Amino acid sequence: MSIITVSREFGSGGREIGKRLSDELGYSYYDREIETEIAEKLSMDENYVADNLERSSFLAMPIHYGSTLSGWNSAWVMQKQQMEILQEKTKILKDIAAKGDCVIVGRAADVLLEENNPFKLFVYADMDSRVKRCMGRMSDDESYTEKEMEKKIRQVDKERKNYHELFADGTWGDKARYHLCVNTTGCEIKTLIPAIAAYIKAWEENQ
Amino acid sequence: MSIITVSREFGSGGREIGKRLSDELGYSYYDREIETEIAEKLSMDENYVADNLERSSFLAMPIHYGSTLSGWNSAWVMQKQQMEILQEKTKILKDIAAKGDCVIVGRAADVLLEENNPFKLFVYADMDSRVKRCMGRMSDDESYTEKEMEKKIRQVDKERKNYHELFADGTWGDKARYHLCVNTTGCEIKTLIPAIAAYIKAWEENQ
Repeated sequence: MSIITVSREFGSGGREIGKRLSDELGYSYYDREIETEIAEKLSMDENYVADNLERSSFLAMPIHYGSTLSGWNSAWVMQKQQMEILQEKTKILKDIAAKGDCVIVGRAADVLLEENNPFKLFVYADMDSRVKRCMGRMSDDESYTEKEMEKKIRQVDKERKNYHELFADGTWGDKARYHLCVNTTGCEIKTLIPAIAAYIKAWEENQ
Repeated sequence: MSIITVSREFGSGGREIGKRLSDELGYSYYDREIETEIAEKLSMDENYVADNLERSSFLAMPIHYGSTLSGWNSAWVMQKQQMEILQEKTKILKDIAAKGDCVIVGRAADVLLEENNPFKLFVYADMDSRVKRCMGRMSDDESYTEKEMEKKIRQVDKERKNYHELFADGTWGDKARYHLCVNTTGCEIKTLIPAIAAYIKAWEENQ
């Protein structure tokens, strides 16, 4: 039973690698699906769940939340919800892992599923290449300049890093934490997939 | 024309990966051969040349070399020789690159051949795995304990890092500097080769 986790710098094409790897290998793919499932189980709004995952701010929130009694009260309710989200997320990840043969993008799955010995892939690229990729996939209601996009990329990476480090000793993006680190700068993602899939298969046979 | 540089943590199996990749791809392989050629061209002892490459101490030597006139004089002669070695090395690397289809292990080739756009591979592994690999390949006249071996590994890595950083802005081992970073922990090297070779071929087609 195979579990592949994909961690990635924002804009590096990690999500596309994850999706294409799952197609190549015939594995299940999980990404946004995890928030959808949590939201359904907890009867919460999916965007609220998504906002609260992959963010580090939420667990620390009460400390910064102001000093009025009602402020603290709201903060307490929010933190309670957030702990529920985290518990539910861990449970869902464990269920996914138990079924096996899956690719999970983000969600700190590399850490939360550590004991399942997943293959841990990290995907990265240089800033120019990431800005270019992100500019190319902007939706109609977005209008970032390249400079703004770079700022957004740095912000998202920072949030991912902080969130990850709530659970892991090591540093997010430190190659020692991963089995393979792939630099997608200047590469068309789909051309890299067969070799990455072959590498994962070879690694698994060594376990 | 393809140039592959392999940088590696000591004991991670990087040299074996380089050798096997060259066999797999039918490319020329360069490692110790480079020092042999320098030694021949400069009529120096091969071990002296090897000792002076992949060490950072040599370029800084006169500063630490003592304060007597004769000390400075010897230091000057040595530094002159060392600059000759470095020049010869760069020339040999350029000749190798001009012929193409080669794998070069170490020798800061990733930096010195930067303008040839080589595929840059970095090979690493966790400390336990590296100690184990090094203990297994000790020669008859060596007798390290595991603790001593770990110390040696850290020392060699430090020297490689320092030497590399004489030429490169970035940090030795920083994944951003490489196209692919491979963690060999717990893996039999030869099983990983076809997938790494396939990845390099895919990357080259993107260039």
